[in-house]
Amino acid sequence: MTWTSELIRQTVAAIRPPDDAAMRAARMHQDRLTKPQGSLGMLEDVSVRLAGLAGECPPPLPVPAAVAIFAADHGVHAQGVTPWPQEVTAQMVANFLAGGAVVNAFAGQVGADVTVVDVGVAAELPEAPGLLPRKVAYGTADMTEQPAMTAEQVLRAVETGIEVARDLVSAGNRCLVTGDMGIANTTASAALIAACTGLAPGEVTGRGTGIDEAMHNHKIDVVAAALDRHAEPIRAMRGQLHDHGRVGRALEVLAAVGGLEHAALAGFILGAASRRVPVVLDGVIAGAAALIVAAVEPDAVAACVAGHRSMESGHAATLVHLGLHPLVDLELRLGEGTGALLALPLVQSSVRVLHEVATFDSAGVTEKQLDGQRDGSA
Amino acid sequence: MTWTSELIRQTVAAIRPPDDAAMRAARMHQDRLTKPQGSLGMLEDVSVRLAGLAGECPPPLPVPAAVAIFAADHGVHAQGVTPWPQEVTAQMVANFLAGGAVVNAFAGQVGADVTVVDVGVAAELPEAPGLLPRKVAYGTADMTEQPAMTAEQVLRAVETGIEVARDLVSAGNRCLVTGDMGIANTTASAALIAACTGLAPGEVTGRGTGIDEAMHNHKIDVVAAALDRHAEPIRAMRGQLHDHGRVGRALEVLAAVGGLEHAALAGFILGAASRRVPVVLDGVIAGAAALIVAAVEPDAVAACVAGHRSMESGHAATLVHLGLHPLVDLELRLGEGTGALLALPLVQSSVRVLHEVATFDSAGVTEKQLDGQRDGSA
Repeated sequence: MTWTSELIRQTVAAIRPPDDAAMRAARMHQDRLTKPQGSLGMLEDVSVRLAGLAGECPPPLPVPAAVAIFAADHGVHAQGVTPWPQEVTAQMVANFLAGGAVVNAFAGQVGADVTVVDVGVAAELPEAPGLLPRKVAYGTADMTEQPAMTAEQVLRAVETGIEVARDLVSAGNRCLVTGDMGIANTTASAALIAACTGLAPGEVTGRGTGIDEAMHNHKIDVVAAALDRHAEPIRAMRGQLHDHGRVGRALEVLAAVGGLEHAALAGFILGAASRRVPVVLDGVIAGAAALIVAAVEPDAVAACVAGHRSMESGHAATLVHLGLHPLVDLELRLGEGTGALLALPLVQSSVRVLHEVATFDSAGVTEKQLDGQRDGSA
Repeated sequence: MTWTSELIRQTVAAIRPPDDAAMRAARMHQDRLTKPQGSLGMLEDVSVRLAGLAGECPPPLPVPAAVAIFAADHGVHAQGVTPWPQEVTAQMVANFLAGGAVVNAFAGQVGADVTVVDVGVAAELPEAPGLLPRKVAYGTADMTEQPAMTAEQVLRAVETGIEVARDLVSAGNRCLVTGDMGIANTTASAALIAACTGLAPGEVTGRGTGIDEAMHNHKIDVVAAALDRHAEPIRAMRGQLHDHGRVGRALEVLAAVGGLEHAALAGFILGAASRRVPVVLDGVIAGAAALIVAAVEPDAVAACVAGHRSMESGHAATLVHLGLHPLVDLELRLGEGTGALLALPLVQSSVRVLHEVATFDSAGVTEKQLDGQRDGSA
């Protein structure tokens, strides 16, 4: 079984570590600007990371931006892990295309284009402007019974994400934003997070957008059963024991317990990283995909900005594991890309500072008068 | 001594409590939209509050928005509470007007207009587009020696803020944003916060944009000395003992230990509240002004949205006292309006949801299948 492809190999090979010189230049430039040193807190860190990603200071303004919503269904839905019927995935895709969802309202506010990618919805979707028909399968298989995806399916879904990222960047976008839709996808996310972090199912399985305790306990059992069934590839990835390489080990786990949208999101992140374009991650679905990306190629995480921290219990642990600090924390639990879109102006603002703000010298502003302190006081 | 004026009286009298019916309508509408109930977390609360403020659902989109930067100097600067020379206030005003400050970059990103108001800079400022010359005094007096402002000065500064809010709303703005500039203004803010909350100077006096421990201890002593000197009006406000009314008691404290920009900001907030237009508060300077506003007219707080939580130690306590939850928390300590501008798209997005998102009925999306739970799960 081949767990990689030429496109995936090329994409991963194009990913470079952050550029230290550009990061140093950004930090030094921040310190010369007309503000007390360090006074922009976490936004200074974002600007420095994006300089490292771009390999230049200032990095390109992350404008314009585009959100890609990867939609897919999940075989594990049959296990009764959510009160929402599976048909809601296709109905919400129609809602996105009609402009009626929250993700559309938020994208409108922050000036991001919306693209919907059918990577595995369990229904025929009519052609529509804004919809990319890239169906790999009519949903995944039930991960408690067999691998959710075949090798061919997972590779095709990852490649789809790479291609969507490539096309959006070619169209001029300088910032990508993750979106997702798929009833039952927090269950698959929990399984991926447990597999990648080693945390117990009970620690990383949340209430999705809100289920009762009985269903939550059942959902934890379902995740545990899936992890049990696929213990061998998970152990191989975490211990790196297998004979196929790093990429293959991670993609085998992704195929075992992930969703088609997780696979596409992993490709989307890899594609962005290979083009040195930042990708703002939404919530727990994108976070789970990013954990797989980190297993495939740790340097790809440098392209990721954590848009927000969701209420889903596994998300906080995911961000810690990735070493990412969320920009927004508003108790959201919606998905679709909504949390990432709220963070987009913050990311853009952080880079704008490096482009537009005057230095003490250029503006003729007197610097603080004491030494021995990095910071001033107003 | 008269501690109020006709304009202030009229403005306060026009402030109404939040409209319960509009808030209920907003909450019910949120629950019908195509998303799991409650899944937008704190943003749903913001949209409900703004419906209550406007007295209708949906409330007007808070677009366009304008930030007003109130600039002033502080007599307490002479006490050595900051390493920055006083001339930096005027220099930064010039930087704002030239478009070179962080507030300009952030305003550009989120599409807000910038107005600078000289309400008390200790220097002659040349006329310039974007500058409103409203100088009440060349800075305040040293609050450790005498009241920082006379009654006439504090009233004139409050009226200036009211007038600026009125003019910006008349010009079509549907959201106001606070900005401020004034070397040493975190010292006056700490005194106001201690006076209004009863917390000790050591609990609410921060390091501004970063001072060493010796200067920080000195700054706490300076705040304590000012509170001591003006203990009588502070006691009167907190115990409501005085013979002049609620407005007068609060403004006498504002005059004693506040800054001209605090007074103008208090007027700005009152002006926004009287017009039922939301005002996004920046950091500790605006927070201190809002505490005075809450003492003048508690219903005015319903117009306020806490843009962010700054690093300044008194700010968190201020927000708790006001009952406001910050939207952004990025370890900022800059001021100028920067934190509020970062929050602006979040506020705008929260209201957009009420205007633009489809309901389950209108979009033909199936609702979740179980009862007994408010929330769904994806």
